[in-house]
Amino acid sequence: MTGEQAFIQALKAIATSNAARGLNDDAAVVRIGGASLVLTHDMLVEGVHFLDGTAPADIAWKLVATNMSDLAAKGARPIGVILGYMLRDNDWDAAFAKAFGAALAHYNAPLLGGDSVKAKQMGSARSFGLTALGEAHTKIVPARSGAKAGDNIYLCGTIGDAMLGFEALRDRRAVDPVLAQAYLRPHALLQEGQAIAPIAHAVMDVSDGVLLDAYRMAQASNVTLNLHADDMPISSAAQAILDGLPRAMAAEKRDLMLRWGDDYALLFTADPQVKLPIKAAKIGHVSAFNGAAITLDGHAFDKADQLGYQH
Amino acid sequence: MTGEQAFIQALKAIATSNAARGLNDDAAVVRIGGASLVLTHDMLVEGVHFLDGTAPADIAWKLVATNMSDLAAKGARPIGVILGYMLRDNDWDAAFAKAFGAALAHYNAPLLGGDSVKAKQMGSARSFGLTALGEAHTKIVPARSGAKAGDNIYLCGTIGDAMLGFEALRDRRAVDPVLAQAYLRPHALLQEGQAIAPIAHAVMDVSDGVLLDAYRMAQASNVTLNLHADDMPISSAAQAILDGLPRAMAAEKRDLMLRWGDDYALLFTADPQVKLPIKAAKIGHVSAFNGAAITLDGHAFDKADQLGYQH
Repeated sequence: MTGEQAFIQALKAIATSNAARGLNDDAAVVRIGGASLVLTHDMLVEGVHFLDGTAPADIAWKLVATNMSDLAAKGARPIGVILGYMLRDNDWDAAFAKAFGAALAHYNAPLLGGDSVKAKQMGSARSFGLTALGEAHTKIVPARSGAKAGDNIYLCGTIGDAMLGFEALRDRRAVDPVLAQAYLRPHALLQEGQAIAPIAHAVMDVSDGVLLDAYRMAQASNVTLNLHADDMPISSAAQAILDGLPRAMAAEKRDLMLRWGDDYALLFTADPQVKLPIKAAKIGHVSAFNGAAITLDGHAFDKADQLGYQH
Repeated sequence: MTGEQAFIQALKAIATSNAARGLNDDAAVVRIGGASLVLTHDMLVEGVHFLDGTAPADIAWKLVATNMSDLAAKGARPIGVILGYMLRDNDWDAAFAKAFGAALAHYNAPLLGGDSVKAKQMGSARSFGLTALGEAHTKIVPARSGAKAGDNIYLCGTIGDAMLGFEALRDRRAVDPVLAQAYLRPHALLQEGQAIAPIAHAVMDVSDGVLLDAYRMAQASNVTLNLHADDMPISSAAQAILDGLPRAMAAEKRDLMLRWGDDYALLFTADPQVKLPIKAAKIGHVSAFNGAAITLDGHAFDKADQLGYQH
């Protein structure tokens, strides 16, 4: 067990409230005054979640979008956010604030409060934290633990766009703006999440790679998720890149796209009889736990290693 | 205007929701499902809010207590907390988790969720953030902006204990445990805050020195707070230390106690006719704004400089 795992175990022992969902979900769900309040918190750390030279506007946008994506997985409407911010310098902070405001306006999520602090020494890696609050509109707020044997597995959104955008930006290659935007300005599927919540058995947002996140859903639900690589939804911009590669390289790249992350798609399961209220790709089916958390084209994975980005 | 002030101004321009209270209060107040949800977020940064060698248990306790004190100022009952945590090493993290659990149990505040992240480089100053949620029980949730000319000014709690505890610990002198605890294990006045809320015109918690915080209350309320130094409540342990000093030094020390902070007392104003539901010292009276935010024994202060700890 790593130090982080030990720490999380210690916190799980503290988090005995039902609302905490055993710290196994994307968000906490608190009943208050007849409403279901959804709460999530994500941190971004310099050098870990973004490179030191990343533009403040991109960091601000991503901080908002990652939290909004957690709300989307619960079918929640944003109520607002609370910011924890480590100051840098005037220009940087001003650029952050401007983009932060634009991202909040985009998601209709008001800024409610927060705290800003100075870092002690120059050169210290800074961190940013955002708490997002939402209100869920379904009586039972979806969890990642609800997948049932017999369910279909669906994916709303596409896989791999952010990875391809990142690679092009890193290598300073021209790239379809759709892919660059997927990396720099990820879009949280709030409306789609609200549409899915009433009919889904399990929902989670895909942020660390669809295979790793499916693995986590399978573990939380104590089932096996059987996935088909060819059914994973790929954008036409991504497909154009794959089409331009030699066949072996394209296959390798496509496989990597399932493990990279930053997709902010919604992974969910539902009864096969249910008519979907939104467009989503069927990417597999749920079976009783058969010894492995997931299978991909029949190949079993019983460990999370190499399935995606663990952080 | 400093960079931090400019950043906060930029955020205030974003925070147009009523719930944000213009970012001028200790907490945000959101109406949801017929209830008043109180939200606050405090960060602690290594080297800024605590010394590098501080025990993890003390940091954990203080992180919880500072947020609970903000809830106390709103008369709120804790619903739970969300933790943003930068990992260090196994032993340190385990000690933090243990004390964190004890502090939450003390305040009956469940852990709901959070995020833990690795810092990139060794030696980076770490930061911790805590979001606390509470439910207020009064229809109108008190703000710091409600002080009215004619009000009495009260203080619930005592002033200066944490400073005296800190000084003794720093100098490795023997000290009354009451004072050491005031610094290491501050106590948030949750019950007192709930009792005060229905009768107070303005409430805030005193964390950065009673003079500076009174200055802020006066500014938010657009009045003058007239304070009397001799009426400030001092614990018997603190009085014993002052009694042991030469007269001039005692006077200087007592004055410093009004400016040091970490008191977690509750400063409030109320109509002089109202009977107080709890024990609190009358420390002054509110008048129409007379050109200075506060007066202390008749001496006017129209700037916040040297009134307390600004961070």
